[in-house]
Amino acid sequence: MLLYDVGNTNIKCYDDGEITIVDDFDEKRDFYYISVNPKIEDFKNGIDLAPYFKFKTDYKGMGIDRVSACYSIYDGVIVDVGSAITVDVMSNGEHLGGFILPGIGAYKESFATISSALIFDIDNNLNLKKLPQNTNEALNFAIFKSIYLMIKEVSDAKKIYFCGGDALMVSRFFKESEYKKDLVFDGMKKVIKRIKETAC
Amino acid sequence: MLLYDVGNTNIKCYDDGEITIVDDFDEKRDFYYISVNPKIEDFKNGIDLAPYFKFKTDYKGMGIDRVSACYSIYDGVIVDVGSAITVDVMSNGEHLGGFILPGIGAYKESFATISSALIFDIDNNLNLKKLPQNTNEALNFAIFKSIYLMIKEVSDAKKIYFCGGDALMVSRFFKESEYKKDLVFDGMKKVIKRIKETAC
Repeated sequence: MLLYDVGNTNIKCYDDGEITIVDDFDEKRDFYYISVNPKIEDFKNGIDLAPYFKFKTDYKGMGIDRVSACYSIYDGVIVDVGSAITVDVMSNGEHLGGFILPGIGAYKESFATISSALIFDIDNNLNLKKLPQNTNEALNFAIFKSIYLMIKEVSDAKKIYFCGGDALMVSRFFKESEYKKDLVFDGMKKVIKRIKETAC
Repeated sequence: MLLYDVGNTNIKCYDDGEITIVDDFDEKRDFYYISVNPKIEDFKNGIDLAPYFKFKTDYKGMGIDRVSACYSIYDGVIVDVGSAITVDVMSNGEHLGGFILPGIGAYKESFATISSALIFDIDNNLNLKKLPQNTNEALNFAIFKSIYLMIKEVSDAKKIYFCGGDALMVSRFFKESEYKKDLVFDGMKKVIKRIKETAC
């Protein structure tokens, strides 16, 4: 099965379990796709899955990739750590809402823009319980503890599912979490399964 | 009394109670100053107060403006909401540590850089207890709740003191806080008072 998840800057391709970043679609084969990029047109061999998601939410304007990442989770918190960090809460198959923080790279860029004194390295041994005693600690602590507290605040007793390129940098602070790198494609596969079953 | 607080982008002037942003020093009068700008040279009529601060901390590389803002607070949390947000904890006249978040403008710029879909307006009626249901709520909630939780996390039962140009945007969420816009100059005045007393 060939799937594409089209973002604003790149296209993720799922080809029978293997995920790669590609420049373009393989239009010689049949495929399914979702896209948040308005420039994408219709394809002869491609089916846009967006209209087929049955997603319960009051949230207006949720990106289809974010919908898809939530779609295979019946109950839990879904955290996608990419260029932005989206955090969404699913409860009994219903989406309760969510929020958006800057991604780790965006925080770093943001500090560097404020002052060259705020250029720093990610601390892989960061202690979230110790008040920082220098600039490097102060910036790492602020970024990761604020993300941590925000996720914890909405997670209640729910399980936390991480996906996205920078997921491991954040998931390291959550013992009970699960890293599911294919969450967006999992949602797409769930929709396709339902379409096929309905067609039978 | 004429005081200057020299930042990287502007110079704040305190002239007998009146605070203004100025382009340059008034070298015809005697003045005291602090500076985080390495380009500032010595002045004939100006005294750099930096060497006179007696500030107890293990923190390395703390900007002198941040030291000065903390200097007049014996016990409390000092939050300076400017181009960055610095949060520092003082306990019995000792600085326990602190951290640095992006400023409100930096968060806004950061989101706009990630995607044009993330350009938004500050919500003056934001409810920090309600899970967001659209992009504008999602971004406001993420910024202000993460800042709120971080300050609350270190504040314990301490009083919170706010200063800086965007202070009111954050202090609105803390009922028991105090807005002290002259905190940096208060620290400078405290140092000057001690110098003069010692000289007597």
